[in-house]
Amino acid sequence: MSDYAVGINTIRAAAARIAPFIHRTPVMTCRTLDRMTGKSLFFKCEQFQKSGAFKFRGACNAVLNLPESVTKNGVVTHSSGNHAQALALAAQMQNIAAYVVMPSTASSVKRHAVEEYGGIVTLCEPNLADREATASKVQIETGATFIPPYNHSDVIAGQGTVTIELLADVPDVDAILAPVGGGGLMSGICIAARAINPSVRLIAAEPTGADDAFRSFTVGELISQCAPNSIADGLLTSLGSLTWPILRDHLDQIITVTDEEIVRAMRLAWERAKLLIEPSAAVPLAAVLTEAFRRNSDFQRIGIVLSGGNVNLDALPWTKS
Amino acid sequence: MSDYAVGINTIRAAAARIAPFIHRTPVMTCRTLDRMTGKSLFFKCEQFQKSGAFKFRGACNAVLNLPESVTKNGVVTHSSGNHAQALALAAQMQNIAAYVVMPSTASSVKRHAVEEYGGIVTLCEPNLADREATASKVQIETGATFIPPYNHSDVIAGQGTVTIELLADVPDVDAILAPVGGGGLMSGICIAARAINPSVRLIAAEPTGADDAFRSFTVGELISQCAPNSIADGLLTSLGSLTWPILRDHLDQIITVTDEEIVRAMRLAWERAKLLIEPSAAVPLAAVLTEAFRRNSDFQRIGIVLSGGNVNLDALPWTKS
Repeated sequence: MSDYAVGINTIRAAAARIAPFIHRTPVMTCRTLDRMTGKSLFFKCEQFQKSGAFKFRGACNAVLNLPESVTKNGVVTHSSGNHAQALALAAQMQNIAAYVVMPSTASSVKRHAVEEYGGIVTLCEPNLADREATASKVQIETGATFIPPYNHSDVIAGQGTVTIELLADVPDVDAILAPVGGGGLMSGICIAARAINPSVRLIAAEPTGADDAFRSFTVGELISQCAPNSIADGLLTSLGSLTWPILRDHLDQIITVTDEEIVRAMRLAWERAKLLIEPSAAVPLAAVLTEAFRRNSDFQRIGIVLSGGNVNLDALPWTKS
Repeated sequence: MSDYAVGINTIRAAAARIAPFIHRTPVMTCRTLDRMTGKSLFFKCEQFQKSGAFKFRGACNAVLNLPESVTKNGVVTHSSGNHAQALALAAQMQNIAAYVVMPSTASSVKRHAVEEYGGIVTLCEPNLADREATASKVQIETGATFIPPYNHSDVIAGQGTVTIELLADVPDVDAILAPVGGGGLMSGICIAARAINPSVRLIAAEPTGADDAFRSFTVGELISQCAPNSIADGLLTSLGSLTWPILRDHLDQIITVTDEEIVRAMRLAWERAKLLIEPSAAVPLAAVLTEAFRRNSDFQRIGIVLSGGNVNLDALPWTKS
């Protein structure tokens, strides 16, 4: 049908595959945030997903979809973020090993989170070359299958399942917003939403300090992220070869927001909606709070995917000195 | 049928009355907290209730149940906490005035929260005598009806509606836990739960620094709270004449927990379950985390009412210096 990494049937198959293992997360609303934006906002709360982020969907789908011959050897990835935790938990739930390569500079909080889900951590130098080399070494030694954080069809298909649930609960949204980092979540949303309800506008939200998707989308070709700098630490990566074509062809718009806007949105979500979200998850809320978006009367009912809630409670952005 | 302030029919009527105005809050679960307690915990999430706490149920029921002749004169209360916010919002939604008497020492955060819901604040001296005198003066001047925070049959009936929803979603809990302060929530739970499923054990949780309910329950007569001291600032009040007889006759147990246990439970709820709850709401979670409770094999499936999520994000208990 197309040259994309995934289609709607792959996403529907993923949804059926992971259903027994994931949480069907609630869609929540907040009167105050509706008033502030002049819209009706529907928050798909993936901070309540297992491992605290949507990443569990893709990781779980990838683990369940491993060829039988290699399943017992486990999985490996390099990541210090939500994908690492998600993969560790998904592997633990299937009783297979998860090897996680993390930079030696990763916080002990992040390391412990992975280890608590049974992940086996190998430390490496904090640069991409050594991360890849170390992961490759682990892979050869163990026979584990490498599961990247986003540029993988099983991962994209897993993330796309969030859209099936959101549109089942709120079929008549005018637009769906989600954060974009590597693009795994947003590309899955694009494929699923276009198939289920082609009229829904698809809008990615991105930090100005890591705006490779915005720049790529503007010029129409993939530009890598160099020296990203944003509090939204889940969105610092570049788009991938599988996610970029989907975003290029299906996104209606990319909105960029500053770290200041992200922190304000995050605090509003906590204070007014009691939604404990991490900075990356606050990015689409920051986007709908921008004056340009509030003034845009093209869409009124907005689905927002809150991507996760893994925050260090000892270092909240508004209490940092 | 009984001499209690409310019966199940009153609570069912309240549920029907407030249904169009309240959120039906979700029941959530957390694998990690289940593992830590060895139980299956079902969290009824009233932090997502309008105004951020279960108090909106009782306030809304009281406002809707005002005699027609006095409705237009509005309502009045003295409170600096969740009841004040809840009453202000409930009144605003019916287009009537809410007069709130607050001690001059109340934080500006609390004052603004009430004013944002349209409440008309009158400041008084920070003692009960002046609170009551000032409220009485406002009442005479305006003709507003006084709605106390818990010792009122409409308020108790409204709070009891939380049980109908919880037991509809999870009919087979072995026990229900909730915090006890003035007893409005817990007494409503008692009446509703006993009527819907008499075998459910009813357990109140209370801070050791404000344990009037525990001491009253132990000796079998109402003892007032003197000089309470706890981080659970929603639970510092004494039981009332209407709530005490219900608790005395229906509670199975009262568990007391220290402020240290409360803060630990609150942080666990935030960190592991992404449930943004206030200290008072963490009290029953602290109770199920005690060794005695974890060892008790009489009950396995536990409903916990998380009472609210109104916290000052600039002064979290674990970041305070």
